[in-house]
Amino acid sequence: MYQFLCRTDLADESHESFIKNSQSKECDGVNIEKTSNGDINISRVEVTTEQGAQNIGKPIGKYITIDINPNASDRSQNIEAVAQQLKTELRNILPNSLNAPIMVVGLGNWNITPDSLGPKVVDQVYVTRHLFKLMPNDVPDGVKSICALTPGVLGITGIETAEIVKSVVQEVKPAVVVAIDSLASRKLQRVSTTIQLSNTGINPGSGIGNNRNAVSAETLGVPVIAIGVPTVVDAATLAGDCIDMIIEKEKLEWNLDDDKRDILEQVLAPTVLGNVVVTPKEVDTMIEDLSEMIANGINYAFHEDKVFE
Amino acid sequence: MYQFLCRTDLADESHESFIKNSQSKECDGVNIEKTSNGDINISRVEVTTEQGAQNIGKPIGKYITIDINPNASDRSQNIEAVAQQLKTELRNILPNSLNAPIMVVGLGNWNITPDSLGPKVVDQVYVTRHLFKLMPNDVPDGVKSICALTPGVLGITGIETAEIVKSVVQEVKPAVVVAIDSLASRKLQRVSTTIQLSNTGINPGSGIGNNRNAVSAETLGVPVIAIGVPTVVDAATLAGDCIDMIIEKEKLEWNLDDDKRDILEQVLAPTVLGNVVVTPKEVDTMIEDLSEMIANGINYAFHEDKVFE
Amino acid sequence: MYQFLCRTDLADESHESFIKNSQSKECDGVNIEKTSNGDINISRVEVTTEQGAQNIGKPIGKYITIDINPNASDRSQNIEAVAQQLKTELRNILPNSLNAPIMVVGLGNWNITPDSLGPKVVDQVYVTRHLFKLMPNDVPDGVKSICALTPGVLGITGIETAEIVKSVVQEVKPAVVVAIDSLASRKLQRVSTTIQLSNTGINPGSGIGNNRNAVSAETLGVPVIAIGVPTVVDAATLAGDCIDMIIEKEKLEWNLDDDKRDILEQVLAPTVLGNVVVTPKEVDTMIEDLSEMIANGINYAFHEDKVFE
Amino acid sequence: MYQFLCRTDLADESHESFIKNSQSKECDGVNIEKTSNGDINISRVEVTTEQGAQNIGKPIGKYITIDINPNASDRSQNIEAVAQQLKTELRNILPNSLNAPIMVVGLGNWNITPDSLGPKVVDQVYVTRHLFKLMPNDVPDGVKSICALTPGVLGITGIETAEIVKSVVQEVKPAVVVAIDSLASRKLQRVSTTIQLSNTGINPGSGIGNNRNAVSAETLGVPVIAIGVPTVVDAATLAGDCIDMIIEKEKLEWNLDDDKRDILEQVLAPTVLGNVVVTPKEVDTMIEDLSEMIANGINYAFHEDKVFE
Repeated sequence: MYQFLCRTDLADESHESFIKNSQSKECDGVNIEKTSNGDINISRVEVTTEQGAQNIGKPIGKYITIDINPNASDRSQNIEAVAQQLKTELRNILPNSLNAPIMVVGLGNWNITPDSLGPKVVDQVYVTRHLFKLMPNDVPDGVKSICALTPGVLGITGIETAEIVKSVVQEVKPAVVVAIDSLASRKLQRVSTTIQLSNTGINPGSGIGNNRNAVSAETLGVPVIAIGVPTVVDAATLAGDCIDMIIEKEKLEWNLDDDKRDILEQVLAPTVLGNVVVTPKEVDTMIEDLSEMIANGINYAFHEDKVFE
Repeated sequence: MYQFLCRTDLADESHESFIKNSQSKECDGVNIEKTSNGDINISRVEVTTEQGAQNIGKPIGKYITIDINPNASDRSQNIEAVAQQLKTELRNILPNSLNAPIMVVGLGNWNITPDSLGPKVVDQVYVTRHLFKLMPNDVPDGVKSICALTPGVLGITGIETAEIVKSVVQEVKPAVVVAIDSLASRKLQRVSTTIQLSNTGINPGSGIGNNRNAVSAETLGVPVIAIGVPTVVDAATLAGDCIDMIIEKEKLEWNLDDDKRDILEQVLAPTVLGNVVVTPKEVDTMIEDLSEMIANGINYAFHEDKVFE
Repeated sequence: MYQFLCRTDLADESHESFIKNSQSKECDGVNIEKTSNGDINISRVEVTTEQGAQNIGKPIGKYITIDINPNASDRSQNIEAVAQQLKTELRNILPNSLNAPIMVVGLGNWNITPDSLGPKVVDQVYVTRHLFKLMPNDVPDGVKSICALTPGVLGITGIETAEIVKSVVQEVKPAVVVAIDSLASRKLQRVSTTIQLSNTGINPGSGIGNNRNAVSAETLGVPVIAIGVPTVVDAATLAGDCIDMIIEKEKLEWNLDDDKRDILEQVLAPTVLGNVVVTPKEVDTMIEDLSEMIANGINYAFHEDKVFE
Repeated sequence: MYQFLCRTDLADESHESFIKNSQSKECDGVNIEKTSNGDINISRVEVTTEQGAQNIGKPIGKYITIDINPNASDRSQNIEAVAQQLKTELRNILPNSLNAPIMVVGLGNWNITPDSLGPKVVDQVYVTRHLFKLMPNDVPDGVKSICALTPGVLGITGIETAEIVKSVVQEVKPAVVVAIDSLASRKLQRVSTTIQLSNTGINPGSGIGNNRNAVSAETLGVPVIAIGVPTVVDAATLAGDCIDMIIEKEKLEWNLDDDKRDILEQVLAPTVLGNVVVTPKEVDTMIEDLSEMIANGINYAFHEDKVFE
């Protein structure tokens, strides 16, 4: 399930736009903090008031962006460093008390490589809820109760993903849901280099109005931490960006709907429009590395440190 | 999720044993019908009374075994022939009225090839429930509402499979559940050559007592059709069979528990005992063909014939 | 190994351009024949003279394009129909006498889905050369000697593909080499809908001058039939096409090298330039179907018809 | 290509047998050294004379066995430790002067998981030979020229593996060939826990007489280092072991050929005899880890240490 990122989907980019456009130095109701750790850059945005939410067009909540160095020379070291950073950020963003199990939800389609990130993370999470039921005395000290779900996608199940997640949440009653999803990015540079965390859930589509299909605290009744990684760019987005740049550069007076669509339909085959993605050739390795980073980050964040010593 | 077939798990074999041991020609409360269609042999067993259930150790219900010719020369023709046979048998075994959606459940682990049959069937089922919701006027005539679920396995989710299925059944309220599972067979000859259907659900383990973890009408509250295919033999079973044959042949007076376990532990590494399976080398092709047979059989059985013309 | 199709890489498109530009009805030294068979359109171009070769910019030889209906309703029937058409076309294009073995070469990288077509075809070819050596009396009547090779790609082997193929050709001495390759198309519409055959080999790059890395009769010393299928579009090509269309539409006076590159570098991340491809989401299924079509077409073409009855 | 290990295929086991049977403390012409490094046990056997070769039934040469702890708690650390050990052992066993390129050959079938170790290693080897040709001035200091080949298996190519390797060796003229292969073990305990190195090549089958199909210095004309890992046990071997143990335990006087075959044919389906393997369920993860260990070991051994700093 590719969730399409609007230009404003990254809270730090939204904040940047606001500052630029308003020519002020601060944004009321929004705190931002930028830091780095070795090769990794982190931006932490917190929307604290309704005014802030209006200013940058994002609901009240926390948004963290982790930027990975795509050219890290040592692959294993890089995976470990990002996993450790994720642990820190996840622990910061989590609700304070976590008595009931944590439920990791791997969104996406395991048969389509760039959409398989969520299911691949689930495969590597250290799942323990059943051990507490089957052999409670044998669970090592410091291990927490974690369970996981890979609900599939609408095209494979015929059931809205949120319906499946909600059903199982009602049965399992987790303290928090951590949902991982592949994203379609606006920018090729973001593909596989950005991990986004938020505590506002996943709101497919515009995010406006009530969304029955969201995976969020509102629909599930428990807190939701969303982890998203851009893994593709929609081909129509890429082509559209080209057109927009030329329009801007040449100050063309186009009817955006008609003239632009005309070009897009000539470039993209009409029959496949919307089903064509732009992706690095090495997408398999990319997804493998990302899933290891995120699964380890989750394992480190929820189980106590001594489990990994 | 390998469900371990006991010797008596195939109703037609149980019936055969009963006839042989009782030296009678018939089995009270059990009807059996054998037929064939080209290369395919079909046995249909119906347990009609409690007496019959006791006689062959299987609950009241219908059991169908489809035997495939493993050496069929034309792969595509063979797949189509088995799919057509499955259509016929599924239609025979189904409840009469099917107003609400059909839910196909693909049991098993998609990361372990011989256990991935269920999920692979789900990928090829013609799923339509969402079309009835999103574009009800555009659904072609004769298409029925089908949805699907791949719940995963306990080791990956930490949640009992039956818990997940039950949650989603309560939400979706299907008319019938069709559950597909890989089986661990007693006999190597059965691997990939037998498809079993029954309307008594899937009862993991011994089937004795109340089984909260069964995928059955009792636990789900809707009829369950089970489709099972042996895809592996447990290595301990294979080794045990060797030992049994020699004991019988040589009339050895062994303490079955101790002497036999002693040999098994020497042959099988103790650390891996129970996690080692015997499987054809060509297991990938085998699963691919079986999943196409079963998915097509399901598609043919539920949607009306005109959909495929 | 994506071989990049220039605009003129399809002989029938080159011919069309020539006719259009020269405003004549015929092209000297080039014969063209268009036909169809059910859903399948076939164009057969033969360049017969040096004048013809100059006219359309393609070496003397035969070029066949098979266009597949991408929306065929019955997947199995469509695969079989294309395989039968390929048989006919392959038999037409083959050298007359075939005494020594046929060698099928699957070019491309088996780890990158859209580039794995060649290796996947090889996996399904009915290979028999070793049977003639090991059990010559048991080979069924009508079966021909076929062998196969998947040489890998330069990035994995560090050896030019043509070097590997040439070495093995010198050892095996086949009568003909049939080389299958994934192509990068100019047009999204061509992706997965066009199969191209030619008897002029595969000439990576410009095709101008002596090419030591070609897989062709010149480098291998035996006839080469090339089968190519567009499976991706290079992202830079797609973006470039957008730009060209606007330049043409708006009659912009751009410095093509600088202005265009400027836009491309903004749209495509500079670091990934050249390694980003545009592909349908369902690329796995697409490659599976294409490989079955081509492998069966090869099997039908080389072994006698009675083998498949 | 599963090479079947005879009981005496591991030189250290052969040596042990000799010592036990001869009741001497030493074996003439054979030196043995056992050591350990953390969780890893290493045995280094050197056969120095023809007498030694006769004593333990192995050609003159060096044989190293690395035993891995299958229960290592930290997967990444374990992979790194084994890779480092492999580096040390490979450097010990290599010919002294290495001027020409090193050629890594990944034997086996990439479509059959337990047989795909060799090809998977090749995918992860840091291949550089083409860089020396295409951009010799840009190759970092300390990087050596490495190339690689995955020749496939007889059933897929119809060409003896040794024929393919030999052809390419004649073209590329490497200083040494490093051949990686999956092995069929006698013992389940050895599966995935033992890596064997030798400088005597890979001799499929009995190793008796001239073997045109060996991948060895004799057939290739360059030194060959073989790296083998048991990944399966043949099902017939497992069953045969059971029978042998009972025969020994009960001192049965069986006609080994007839009585034993009789049992085997009843347990193993005759049609599949020889194509059935015993393997851990988690074979995918197992092969992934092993291939990373071996590829990294090769990378560390051939390139200079500074490349990885």
